[in-house]
Order: sequence, then structure tokens, then C-alpha cells
Amino acid sequence: MKCLQPWTRRSKQECAADDKDNFMTQPSRQLKLTTAELAGRIGAELIGDGAGVICGINTIQDAGPDEVCFLSSSKFAKRLEETKAAAVMTGAKVDGFDRPQLVVDNVDRALIAIMQMFAPPLKSFEGIHPTAVVEPDAQVDATAAVGPNAYIGHSVTIGAGTVIGPGCSVGENSTIGAGCRLDSNVVVYHNCQIGNGCVIHANTTIGSTGFGYSFIDGRHQLIPHNGGVILEDGVEIGANSCVDRAKFGNTVVGAGTKIDNLVQVAHNVQIGKCCLLAGQTGIAGSTEIGNGVIFAGAAGAVDNIKIGDGAIMGKQTAATRDVPPGQKLLGAIPQEMTHEMRCMSVYQRLPEMSRELKKLTKKVNALEAAKDDTI
Amino acid sequence: MKCLQPWTRRSKQECAADDKDNFMTQPSRQLKLTTAELAGRIGAELIGDGAGVICGINTIQDAGPDEVCFLSSSKFAKRLEETKAAAVMTGAKVDGFDRPQLVVDNVDRALIAIMQMFAPPLKSFEGIHPTAVVEPDAQVDATAAVGPNAYIGHSVTIGAGTVIGPGCSVGENSTIGAGCRLDSNVVVYHNCQIGNGCVIHANTTIGSTGFGYSFIDGRHQLIPHNGGVILEDGVEIGANSCVDRAKFGNTVVGAGTKIDNLVQVAHNVQIGKCCLLAGQTGIAGSTEIGNGVIFAGAAGAVDNIKIGDGAIMGKQTAATRDVPPGQKLLGAIPQEMTHEMRCMSVYQRLPEMSRELKKLTKKVNALEAAKDDTI
Amino acid sequence: MKCLQPWTRRSKQECAADDKDNFMTQPSRQLKLTTAELAGRIGAELIGDGAGVICGINTIQDAGPDEVCFLSSSKFAKRLEETKAAAVMTGAKVDGFDRPQLVVDNVDRALIAIMQMFAPPLKSFEGIHPTAVVEPDAQVDATAAVGPNAYIGHSVTIGAGTVIGPGCSVGENSTIGAGCRLDSNVVVYHNCQIGNGCVIHANTTIGSTGFGYSFIDGRHQLIPHNGGVILEDGVEIGANSCVDRAKFGNTVVGAGTKIDNLVQVAHNVQIGKCCLLAGQTGIAGSTEIGNGVIFAGAAGAVDNIKIGDGAIMGKQTAATRDVPPGQKLLGAIPQEMTHEMRCMSVYQRLPEMSRELKKLTKKVNALEAAKDDTI
Repeated sequence: MKCLQPWTRRSKQECAADDKDNFMTQPSRQLKLTTAELAGRIGAELIGDGAGVICGINTIQDAGPDEVCFLSSSKFAKRLEETKAAAVMTGAKVDGFDRPQLVVDNVDRALIAIMQMFAPPLKSFEGIHPTAVVEPDAQVDATAAVGPNAYIGHSVTIGAGTVIGPGCSVGENSTIGAGCRLDSNVVVYHNCQIGNGCVIHANTTIGSTGFGYSFIDGRHQLIPHNGGVILEDGVEIGANSCVDRAKFGNTVVGAGTKIDNLVQVAHNVQIGKCCLLAGQTGIAGSTEIGNGVIFAGAAGAVDNIKIGDGAIMGKQTAATRDVPPGQKLLGAIPQEMTHEMRCMSVYQRLPEMSRELKKLTKKVNALEAAKDDTI
Repeated sequence: MKCLQPWTRRSKQECAADDKDNFMTQPSRQLKLTTAELAGRIGAELIGDGAGVICGINTIQDAGPDEVCFLSSSKFAKRLEETKAAAVMTGAKVDGFDRPQLVVDNVDRALIAIMQMFAPPLKSFEGIHPTAVVEPDAQVDATAAVGPNAYIGHSVTIGAGTVIGPGCSVGENSTIGAGCRLDSNVVVYHNCQIGNGCVIHANTTIGSTGFGYSFIDGRHQLIPHNGGVILEDGVEIGANSCVDRAKFGNTVVGAGTKIDNLVQVAHNVQIGKCCLLAGQTGIAGSTEIGNGVIFAGAAGAVDNIKIGDGAIMGKQTAATRDVPPGQKLLGAIPQEMTHEMRCMSVYQRLPEMSRELKKLTKKVNALEAAKDDTI
Repeated sequence: MKCLQPWTRRSKQECAADDKDNFMTQPSRQLKLTTAELAGRIGAELIGDGAGVICGINTIQDAGPDEVCFLSSSKFAKRLEETKAAAVMTGAKVDGFDRPQLVVDNVDRALIAIMQMFAPPLKSFEGIHPTAVVEPDAQVDATAAVGPNAYIGHSVTIGAGTVIGPGCSVGENSTIGAGCRLDSNVVVYHNCQIGNGCVIHANTTIGSTGFGYSFIDGRHQLIPHNGGVILEDGVEIGANSCVDRAKFGNTVVGAGTKIDNLVQVAHNVQIGKCCLLAGQTGIAGSTEIGNGVIFAGAAGAVDNIKIGDGAIMGKQTAATRDVPPGQKLLGAIPQEMTHEMRCMSVYQRLPEMSRELKKLTKKVNALEAAKDDTI
């Protein structure tokens, strides 16, 4: 629900500063820190001994004696009794825990920082791989990398620090911003614009033709899709997802919106900023989605509707008409979530209700007959 | 609903003539036409001045002063008051619109024609790219193109004018007809037959093994899939979709059928001609689908059923048993669409009905008690 | 339901022996066997003449006079009257069928054996294709093959007899076991472990980052995913599916589990052995699934729940809370399958029930009014 906070558009400079978070971090191998050093790096208040050595971070259950664990909510504090962790990172001092504690303002923020420190080190591609095919009129920044067997089409522009993975294909006249990562076998069609700091996971397709046909002369004829796709800054898209190009203008995914795996975004859809679309969500053509909207797994929306800022669509719930801002919907014909849950609950008693209704009908008929007798 | 018109099988010659529609059109850059020239090209009746210059086509809302807009239905005529378009293309003269009008018989047909004229110009691949791997016994037509880093397997045949995109892989003994387009990273397995004028979008898989196992000796053992896949002429498939190969014979997609993104067509499915399968639809094994059948988004069918010609499955509706021709189904247990909508409507009043039923039961019990008293 | 049999973990040796079943078989072309030879090969009892020549296997309906057909259940015996097959393979002698019969203990086992004998012959890749890019510190077994334009990253290990298809990409430090097959354009990210005898179909992604964000400083920030993915021995995954990597530890798919096309397995999911996940199923983050669990098409589970051994989720049914072992669930709020079917059936009579309830309410009100009058 955090996503309902007002979205503030960040400046290009702020975006650039954030872009580094989107990269696979490349720390030195076998990083070891004392508890005190770790506290210092994340700005934590250290309670207890700072001399112990920390080699990683893990969950309360799985952390080993050389790892720090983290307490995401005080309601899980009891689980600390069982942990083997060397220390705990927490939002508030835990009473009765006898090992070092790193107390931070925001556990998630510290978690991200520590996980980045201890992320498995990875080599990255540099420059244009000799097996990549880059058309001579494409402009690849000197600090960008193009992986093995990738294809960069005519008039494509690729920004600073961007890494194009093995087997990717970028179509004519598309632009990829700075600090982006396209993982293996991503396909970007022609005339698409991808902003700065975007991440696209493997086997995802951006810019395929939309599903728009007209039945003329005895067959479905494709309406050409002369438009493109715009992914604004900081958009992240999972694996095996699709964003179709527009007929006119552009299909747009707003800044900071995150899309999961196997998601379908149809032609001319307009998605706002800071939305979350979970796995297997599908948005049909020309639908407009506000800022901070959340789609749970396999949710979606029919075509040509508007979904207001901060609305939430529950699992497998496809909006069928305009959704006001902030509304939480659930169900096959989506309705307000708590009402849907009441309906579902009665639904499960339907056979019983049906029997009651029959019994009651009999009784009433008997009463009526009796009344007629008494008259 | 246009799709319910009778499908007439076209001759090879007609198909070949139509194939050109399937290509990304490559008009000269910066095409400019006078309104009169444009009217001439699309066979429109010109009302008003023919001297103005047209550089593109766009929607009523977004058209600029050098673009023509189009009126897809007279009910939107009022929107023309706000347009900046130089002219309007319409099915019937619009009273009170003071700029030139191009009156046509069929707006969609003219729209397709004009959009093709003004489509963004694209370079296309020619010949076999030096980085493509083509097995020596494959036969690639001299007018076909194979893009960078594509792989063409043993004994594959590729027809005239077909373009195989970067990173595609075509398996042994498959045939791709004339005038086809396989976009980047499409995979066609062995022994598949793709007709003429087919389009397959990026990252789609044709001919993967079906999901058919038998539990023998304590484990699921795959039933081999010795069959293949046939896509008949004019089939178009979106991005990241799958069509599995058959155990025996072939999985078939009929001529002119169009399939959207992220669609699953399982082994041995038989799909008729001129069907539409919208995004995220799934058809389970061996199901037979007639001609002109429509599946809305995330719809589908269970295995081993028959769906009659012209049937329509609403959004998220999976047919669970045979569907008669022309039937429109909706719902979790699919039923006739208007009845399902009535059921849904009552469903949303279930908590209220449940309360009413309880109240009524109390009243009836009281009446019965009173009756017993009077006896 | 066969899958509910107890799963017995097989030894490495048994697994290795089974691996060969996972390969596309490569019989000599135009295999011809006498009926007697075929009976001998599959250990069948031959009833009738053994001299006829068999060139293939097919269904009762489609078998030709040089093919054997098979009777999967005695209830289809009547269909044999129409077959053109040279002989029938069956689990029990069919009375009144005048052509040769091959009687076997287990029809499915014999079917698999015969289909493998007559499978279309295919050439396979050998060695490392000159266009493949293999990092110098990767270890590819001498008997493994890497197809055209594939990429094998740093420190990757590939086991004996494994075939990596064209355009695949395997990330740093991942290991692929022996006897595996990765079809074209499969992507395996870094630090993933794939066991022996696994098959992954085209365009599938293993190890993409999970969908885990925290809203900090006005934007969704990715929680790093430092973990990996483990596919145990004998796992098979269809085309265009995704298995996300874990935040900590590993996302695990247990030995012998089979996953269909377009399936989503989210970060940190733990799937047991011998499960079946049909097409378009989606499992949300950190959910634990027992052994022998079955998900029908487009089924799934929300995050952080546990599903017991042998449970079955019906089509489009997403578990929303823990599921006890062996339970069969169906519906939008999943409930026990037979109860859900009763509810669905009443649901379809809701408009009628609603009318009855109204009528009854009127009658009861009238009775009450009459009673008041008589008092």
C-alpha cells in the first residue's frame, strides 16, 4: 500500500544517481566486514560488540554464524531465538537478543544496501563483442556494452553505461537511454524509446504489432501500427513479457513503473508512474492507467477504460469499466474488495441457501393453505 | 462480430497478392500528397479543396494541421469540432465540417491503405547475413532474407520474399512458405510447416513438445511427440506465444487465423480458419475449434472438446465442454453470456439475499408457531 | 491421479539410465519391423500373424495399413471396427478383432517405446559450433554440444551429453548437468544449478530477478536477489516459461517435476518432486509446494503459502491459503472441488432464486398481515 504515497517526479540528475541501483552490483569477492564497519556503512546505531566478522546477509532462519540477519517486523522477533546469525539488523532494539544489533531507520533501505555489498560478484560485458552485429549508422556510447550475438539495427542510439545482453535485437531507429540493462535475448522493435535506468529481463518483447484487425473482404486485415513504445526512466520489466506498439502515437509505461514476468501490455495502453504489474497481468488496448496503480497476479483490465491513481486490482481481477482513484477491486465482475469477499463467502453457502429457500417455500405454501382453510 | 461472415478460401494467387499487406511497408520517406492525390489513391469522393498538403494520418484528437484524421463512426462526429486535422476521411459526408472531406465506402479499408502509405520507412534485411548459420542442405529462396545470427537447420525450405529475423532458429525439415515474416528470436522446431503470408512476432515458439506424460515406474514419462505443427496461409501470431507439436499428425492453425501475445496452443489442437485468439488465451490439448471463433483476453478451452463455428468466449472464460456454433459464453463455468451477466448481477447482491432469507425464515417460523397456538 | 503414488527418490544411476528418454530419439530412417519383431522389442504377447510389416504407430482413427494402432482403454474397443491399422497394441486381448494383436502389461509404456522407435530421425549438434561464444574459463564436457550463436558465460560448467541449442545464453557460474537439452534461445542467468536429464524448451528464462520492491524515497526500489535457482534431476520445462531467482538461497524445482508453457514460478518458490504444472500456471513468491501436486491450466497459488503433497488445483484456480495434502480445490476462492461444483450449479440458478425469494417475501408479508387482522 506504500505505493499510494504521492509520486514526485525526480530530476534527470536524481535518476542518474539512482541508475546504479539497477545494475548487477559487482563488489569485490569475499567481502568481509566487522560488525562495526557494516554499521558504519549503513549508518546504523550499533548495540553490542563491533569486532565480529560478517561475510553476508540472510534470513533469520537461514543465516549462518558469519552472517547478519534482519528483522523486517517486530512481530517476527520471537524467531530470533532460533537464529544462528552473528548479528541482527533491525528497525528497533530487540530486548533479550544477546548478540550485536544494528538499529536503522528503514530496514528495507538497509537491507538493499547490505545485499548490494554482498551480492555475488559478476563479470560484465565491455564494449561491442566481436560477434555482435551493429549497423554502421547506429550510435553506441563508448561506455556502453553490446554482448555476443546481439543485433543493433540502423540508426539505433544506445546511451552511456548501458549493457545489451547476448542475443538481443534492437530495431531500426530505437533509442535506449543511459544506465539500462537489457538481458539476454530481449527484442526491441523499431521506433521505440527506452529511457534511462531501465531494466528489461530475458526474452521480453517491446514493440510488437498490436492485435488490431478489421474484417474486410472475407478476412481479418491488420490495421498498421505506425506508432511506437515509450518506456520512461526507471522502468523495469520482467522476463517473457510483451509491450505492443501503438497504432498512432505511443504505448507508454510511466517512470518508475515495475512490470513482472509474462505480462501483456497491449497497443496504445498508457500506464502512469510508479505502478506495479505482477506476473501474468494483461492490459488490453488503449486503456489508461493512473499513477501508483497495483495489479496483483494474473489481474488486468479490458480495453478502452480508465483506471484512477492508486487503484488496486486483486488477483485474477480484470477491470471491466472505469475504476475511480484508490478503489480496491476483486472478483470476476470486479467490485469493491470487502464486498466481493462477503459475496464470495455467501457464494460458498449457496447449496445450503438453496435448500433453505425450498424448505421455506414449502412452509409458506402450507401456511397459505392453512389460512385458506381457516377462512 | 464481423468474423461470423462466411469464410471463403482464397486461391494461392489471391494469397500471394495479399501477402504484401503483411510486410512492414516501405514507403519513400517524407511522403507528401495533396488532398486530391490522397483521395485519388484511396478512391474517395473529395468534398472541398484538394490543394492542401497531407503528410500523415492520425486520430481526431491528435492529428496536426498537415494530417488527415478519420471518422470511424458517425457517433464521434461531434469530436471533429476540436480537431486540428487538415481533412477528414469518413464513410459519409459530415455536415458542418468546413475542411475537406474524403468520403469512402469502407473507412477501415481506407485507413489501412493510408496508414500503409505513411508508415515509418524501414530498411529490411536482404539475402543471408554473413553471421547467420544456414545448414548446407537447407533451401533458402534467392529472394528471401535471413537476418544476423539466425540459424536455419538441415533440410529447411524457406520461400520467396520471406524474411527471417535476427536470432531466429528454424529446426530440421521445417518449411516456411513465401511472403512470411519471422521477427527476432522466433523459434520454429523441426518438422513444422508454415504456409504463405504468415507473420510470427518476436520470441514466439512453434513446435515445442506437448505436455503429455504418463506416470510409469514412479515418475512422469514423456509421451513422445512425433507429429508437427501446421500454420496455414495468412496466420499471424503475436509475441511470446507457443504452439506445441502433436503426438501424432499435426497441431493445426487454420488459414487467416490471428493469435495475440502470450497465447498457449497445446498439442494436437485443431483451430479453424479466421479465428481470433486474444492475449493470454490458452487452448488445452486436442481441442477442436471451428471457423471464425473468437477468444477474448485470457480466455481458453479445456482439452478434448469441440467449439463450433462462430462461437465467442468472453474474457477469462475457459470452455469446459463442447460449445455449439455461434454460442457466446461467459463465466467461470461458462454459460450463455446474457444469463451469466444476470447471475453475476444477483451474485453481487448475495449478502443482502442471505440476510433476507434469514429474516424470512424467522418470520415463517413465527407464523408457524402462531398457527400452532391458534389450533 | 497417478501422480499421487508415493514418490521414490531414484539414485543417480537410475537417473542417468532414464536420461536417454529425454532426448529426441534418432532411429534410422524408414525403420520397418515385422509384427513379430515389434512384439519382441516391446515384450508383447503376439496373437495372430507376425509376418506383416509395420512402419509406424498412430491412433485408431488415423493409422494406415502399414501402421500399428493402440487401444488405451477397453472402452474404445468398438472404434477398432473402423481402423485401417495392420495390428493393435492393447492391454488385453480384444475379442472379434481379426488382425494381429500385441498384448502388453502397460499400454503407455509400450506406446512410449514404439513411438521412440518410429520417431522422426533428427540430426543433432556435436561439439562447440564455431559461431558459439564460450568464455575461456567455462568447462564444456567433451561429449556436450553447444549450438550456433549460443553464449556460455564465465565459469559455467556443462555436463556430459548435454545439448545447448542455438541462441541460448548461460550466465556466469551456472552449472548444467549431464544429459540435458536446452532448446533454442533458452536463457539461464548466473548462479543457477540445473541437474541431470533436464529439458528446457525454447525461449524459457531461468534465473531472472524476482518481483520484489520496497517503496523508499518516493520510488519502488528493487530488493537485490542474491540467490539462485536449482532445477533438480529430470525436471522438464516447456516453452516461454519463467523461473525467477531467489533473494536468499534458491528457488527450487524438485526432481521429476514437469512444467508446461508460459508458466511463472516466482522468487524463492519451493516446488517438490513429481509435480505437474500445466500451461499458464503462476506460483507467487516463497510459496512451498509438496510432492506430486498438480496444477491444471492457468491455475496457481498466492505467495507465502504451503500446498500439501498430492493436492490438485483445478483450472484457473489459485490457492489463497495453505492447502492440506491430497485436497482437490476449484473456484475463485478455492474450495473443495465437489462443493465448488455444487455452488457453481446453484450460482447458475441465482436469477431464479432471487425471483423466488421476492415472491416468498411478498407471501410471508401477506400472511403476517392476515394474522394481524385475525388477532
